This record gives sequence, structure tokens and C-alpha cells, in this order.
Amino acid sequence: MTFLQRTIDAVHPLCEESMEAARRRQDQLTKPAGSLGRLEELSIRLAGIMRTPRPRIKDKVIMTMAGDHGVVDDGVALYPREVTVQQVLNFLRGGGGVNVLGRHVGARVVLVDMGVDHDFEPAEGLQIRKVARGTASMLRGPAMTREQALHSIENGIAAALEEAGRGMDILGTGEMGIGNTTPSTAIACAVTGVAVPLATGRGAGLTDEGLKRKIEVIESSLALNRPDPSDALDVLSKVGGFEIGGIAGSILGAASLGLPVVVDGFISTAGAIIAALLCPLAREYMIYSHKSVEIGHEHMFEYLGARPLLDLGLRLGEGTGSALAISIAEAAAKVLDEMATFESAGVSGPVQPGGLVDEG
Amino acid sequence: MTFLQRTIDAVHPLCEESMEAARRRQDQLTKPAGSLGRLEELSIRLAGIMRTPRPRIKDKVIMTMAGDHGVVDDGVALYPREVTVQQVLNFLRGGGGVNVLGRHVGARVVLVDMGVDHDFEPAEGLQIRKVARGTASMLRGPAMTREQALHSIENGIAAALEEAGRGMDILGTGEMGIGNTTPSTAIACAVTGVAVPLATGRGAGLTDEGLKRKIEVIESSLALNRPDPSDALDVLSKVGGFEIGGIAGSILGAASLGLPVVVDGFISTAGAIIAALLCPLAREYMIYSHKSVEIGHEHMFEYLGARPLLDLGLRLGEGTGSALAISIAEAAAKVLDEMATFESAGVSGPVQPGGLVDEG
Repeated sequence: MTFLQRTIDAVHPLCEESMEAARRRQDQLTKPAGSLGRLEELSIRLAGIMRTPRPRIKDKVIMTMAGDHGVVDDGVALYPREVTVQQVLNFLRGGGGVNVLGRHVGARVVLVDMGVDHDFEPAEGLQIRKVARGTASMLRGPAMTREQALHSIENGIAAALEEAGRGMDILGTGEMGIGNTTPSTAIACAVTGVAVPLATGRGAGLTDEGLKRKIEVIESSLALNRPDPSDALDVLSKVGGFEIGGIAGSILGAASLGLPVVVDGFISTAGAIIAALLCPLAREYMIYSHKSVEIGHEHMFEYLGARPLLDLGLRLGEGTGSALAISIAEAAAKVLDEMATFESAGVSGPVQPGGLVDEG
Repeated sequence: MTFLQRTIDAVHPLCEESMEAARRRQDQLTKPAGSLGRLEELSIRLAGIMRTPRPRIKDKVIMTMAGDHGVVDDGVALYPREVTVQQVLNFLRGGGGVNVLGRHVGARVVLVDMGVDHDFEPAEGLQIRKVARGTASMLRGPAMTREQALHSIENGIAAALEEAGRGMDILGTGEMGIGNTTPSTAIACAVTGVAVPLATGRGAGLTDEGLKRKIEVIESSLALNRPDPSDALDVLSKVGGFEIGGIAGSILGAASLGLPVVVDGFISTAGAIIAALLCPLAREYMIYSHKSVEIGHEHMFEYLGARPLLDLGLRLGEGTGSALAISIAEAAAKVLDEMATFESAGVSGPVQPGGLVDEG
């Protein structure tokens, strides 16, 4: 049995008992029932994931998976390929968006080299789990072999387990890889069946011509490689990326340990689709941070039955959306854990059941 | 000249020079231009409000204004009137939703007794600025006199100034007052002209009968008192509340000091409408935290030309939405201040202007 299969087998349904206890407690807290909306729902789900009626989130981790993409040589990205390396180095020095937002919410940011076209020196906060120095171009054949696809997922699992060993109550996904909305869009189209032009994003600064080129590249790659939408490893190997496989693996790794996973943006959601194909139960462990500006994101959410927490016009990736949503998840857990109950605070309950509820 | 008028006169347009400098810096940070969406917009507005190219938010304050409402005796609230007092005491002990979320984001929560039907002992974190022990019922006449309306606004200004003296870089509004969605809805209808049934919320547990009663009470109160929609003091005195006047005042007080104000939920937005009527320039200082479940909130936003940051199904008030949005505002300022630039990090810029931008 593979490491991947053992991990999948270790993902269990959420703990109903803990969720029921959390639900009961929410209704005793000093507020009108349901008045904290999605924070309440989230706290109940966290209870089910973490198997305790009062989950606590202290050690927060954002894992930013990095990889390069052969398809970039076919002209699908605004920035040159070397920016992947440059940004990883920027992140290791703490200068990236994910570093700023990670510090803001008290999360540690871990970089994972899944397949960057560069040999990094060992560094604090860097895991080197390289599958290869970048994928091949999916426009000319599969992006990677099936073995490499499995390898990238298993490396992602191992990366999550290693961080769990250092202390981790919640995992936020993230990524860096010039060109990686292209494979992510291809994965979305391959699995959900949505037409490429409907799921391909314009991004900032994309001209009509640039968009047309990107759509053609994705359509040609899908026609050439014919990924089997029911076979996650086939989809990932043919039109994916090493960091996308790593994200899928890290989600499964965290879920196998009973930990919640915050899914970052468009590319991370492509990883979530791969994880969900491999292990449908893992969906229950995923919290979707935000709705990206990328138009394909909505189709992914529809396929996953997911509703993101935030809509702030973000399209940076890296784990920046994860950072903001990790803070919301922590807030949800604290509400459940720390608010007074009607009884403990000596606050009267409703006088006329079914009557009016006021905000104040 | 009144204290109110002096405060209004001290509200200046945003500093264009600081905003321009912030805009330029955003475009030099190591990310595709615009890719942090509303965080970028917010950081630029904060620069204009705080009159510095790199605003920093350290001391965060949530002011929870409390007041009682005569109209509660006419059966428009689910909870008994004494819950206002009980909740203020709960908040002073740190057990409320606003306390939990305030602690989570590092904001201090200050209670302000604007008009609770109870005499509080002096306490740490409590300002006593009572106008009267609750309003009169607007179903039988004006909720308060014009002098009391002015008094409530000026007390709100004074409350904000007092906290600024203790250290305040951003103010979040909040409130507690059983029954206060009813006057807030009346204010929304009086000022925006929207029909009462379209702006009156069902809240959790509201039966069809309860909703009908609430609509009748608001319609009758407006018909009896005929507030002048162009006269903020007239609207506030006839169908308002002391905590709503206090919120309006605190917004003006913060704006007069060049500080950003995060507006909490439905009731706080009624206060924002009063503030905007008194001082249109103050709108530029307001950041709307979230879209409440209350259906009237959307009409208020339309009137104010406002776009809230979050949509999390909240309808608790207290300042809980402010807490979450204060953290987003702080994050926006940190992105602007702390991210590396392309130059400082040695990261290459775009290769093909107008080409594709990728998330990662």
C-alpha cells in the first residue's frame, strides 16, 4: 500500500458528537442564536474536524509550495520564469505579501520547494522536496510522469506531517510558481467539464490577445493529453504542476491528522480538486478562504460545493488569502471557547419565542 | 458655535499627496499591480485619512455605545429591556462577542453608557455619558428632544476624543441596545426614502406576525413624527436612539482627528447616515465592516455609496463586525508598509506589458 493510500485511509468523517456539543454551546452563548453567522458554522465544523467540543487554534502554519512550469516557455505568463526563484528568496527574507499577512495573523510561513528550477541552499523555514526542476510543457505532452505526480502528492503529505511535528493546529495552503494559473485552469476544465473560455482568467493587464493565447494553449494541451477526469493522478500528471500536487498532498496530510486546512486562492483550489478526487472525505476538512478575481474560481467552487469566506478582490496567491481566513477560523474557535453563556453571565433569554431579534 | 459645529469644521478632505505616494509604493511592491485588491485600495485610503504615505495602525479601539429604547415597551424586541444592562455588565467582564473578537484582533473595547435605564458604578473601560435613562417611545411622539439629540452626538464626539487621548489609531463603532434595529430601520427609511416593508428585517426567529408588527410600529412612528430627511437632528430626535447619536458623534470626532472609523453593522450604519448628513466629508473616513443579515442594510449602503468588506452572515452588532474589519484594515496598512519592493528584493518585473498575470 502506498504512503498516499495509507494517508487517504486515515481521513475519517467529522466527529458528529463534538459538532453536536459545539452546536449546543453556541446556542447558550450570550447572543441571539445564529447571530454570528458563518463564524458559528465554522466553529462547529472545526469541532468536528478537531474532534473536540471546544477546538483551540494556536499554532498556525502557511505552507507556500513553489514550482516552475514548462508551459511558461510557450508564452503564457507576464513575469519571467526566474521570478519563481526570486520570490522564494524574497519570502525567505520575509518581504512577500504572504510574510506580511502571515506575521499579522501570527502564522509561520514555510516555503516548500516542490519543483523550482534552481537549487536552494538549506534555510530556516524552507523544506526542499523537489520532484524535478520544473514540469515539461503540457502543450507538447504530459507535464510530468504519473510517478512524478504521485511523488509530488506524497512529498506534500510529508511536508504537512513534518510541520505537524513542529506544532500545527491549522494549515493554510499557498503557492508560488510563475505561469501556474494556466495548469490550474486546465485542471478545473478537465475535472469539472467547464469550457476553457469560461474558466480562463484575464488577470490584471491581460489584453484580449493575451487571453486568446492562454485559452488556445489550455485547449490544445487538453486535446493533446486527454486527461481522464475521474483519475486524479492522470489529470495532475498531464496538465498539473509539482506545487499543485504538493498542495493536494498537504491537504490530505493535514486531514489525516484531523486538522483543518484553509485553501488559499485559484491555484490552491486546483490542488483541492485533486485532493477531493483522491479522497472525497477530505472535502469536509477544507475551508475556502476567498473568491479570487480569476473567473474560473467560481466553477471550481460549484464543483466542490464550496462557499468561500472572503471576497476582497485578491489574486496574489502565495497564501495571502489563507492568512486572512486563518484569522477568521481562529476567531470562530475563540467565540465558541471564550464567550460567556446566558447562565454564567446572568443574562435573560428571549421573552417571546419566534418574535423579533435585534442586532444590538 | 457649538462643539458639534467646531468638530464638523475640523473634518478635512483626504490628503491627496499621501494617497498618491501610497499608490506609487503599492505599484513597486513585489506582486502584480492591483493583486491585493481591496487591501490595496484600503491602504491608499488610510494614507489619505491619516495624512501619511505609510500609515501604521497600532492602538485599536472598539467603542460599544449602549442605550435603551422606549419603543421596546410596544413589543418590538425578542429580549427583555433589562438585557441591555446585563450585556453591558457582561462586556465589562469580558464575556461578550465583542470582547472575544476585540481580544483576537488586539483592540481594546470601551463601553459607553449613552442612555441605559440603569445607573452604572464607575468601572475600567466604561465611559458614562448618559443623556437620559432610555428614549421615549417613538410610537407616541419624538424619541427624544432636539437638545437631547445634539447632546447625544456631542457626547459621542467627547467619547472619541477621550479615547484618542489614551491612544487610538483607528476607531471601530459598536452598540448594545435591546430594540435598536427598530429606530435604525426608521432612520434608514426616513433618510433614504425606501419603503418600510423593504427595509425591515426578519432577524432570526421572526415570525410573519412579528415582522408585520415591527413594520406597523415603524410606519406609524414615521407618520406621527414626520422627520425631515434633510435635518439629521430632526431625524435622530424623532425616531433615533441615544447610542445611535453617540455613534454618529464618535465617527465625527475620529474624522476630525484624521482617524479612520470602521462602521460595525446595521445600527452603526444608521449612526453613519446621521454623521454623513451632518458632515458629508466624514464619509471618506468610514470603512464599512460587513453586510448584515438585516435586509435594510443594503439600502443604507446604496444611499451611502458604500461597499462593505465582509459578508459573513453576522447580525450581532456590539462591534463584532468592526473587530474583524479592523484587523483587515491593519493588514492593509502593513502590506503597504512592510512588503519588499521589486528593487529592494531584486525581483524582476513583467516581461510583456499587457500580457498575462498569474496568481502565483
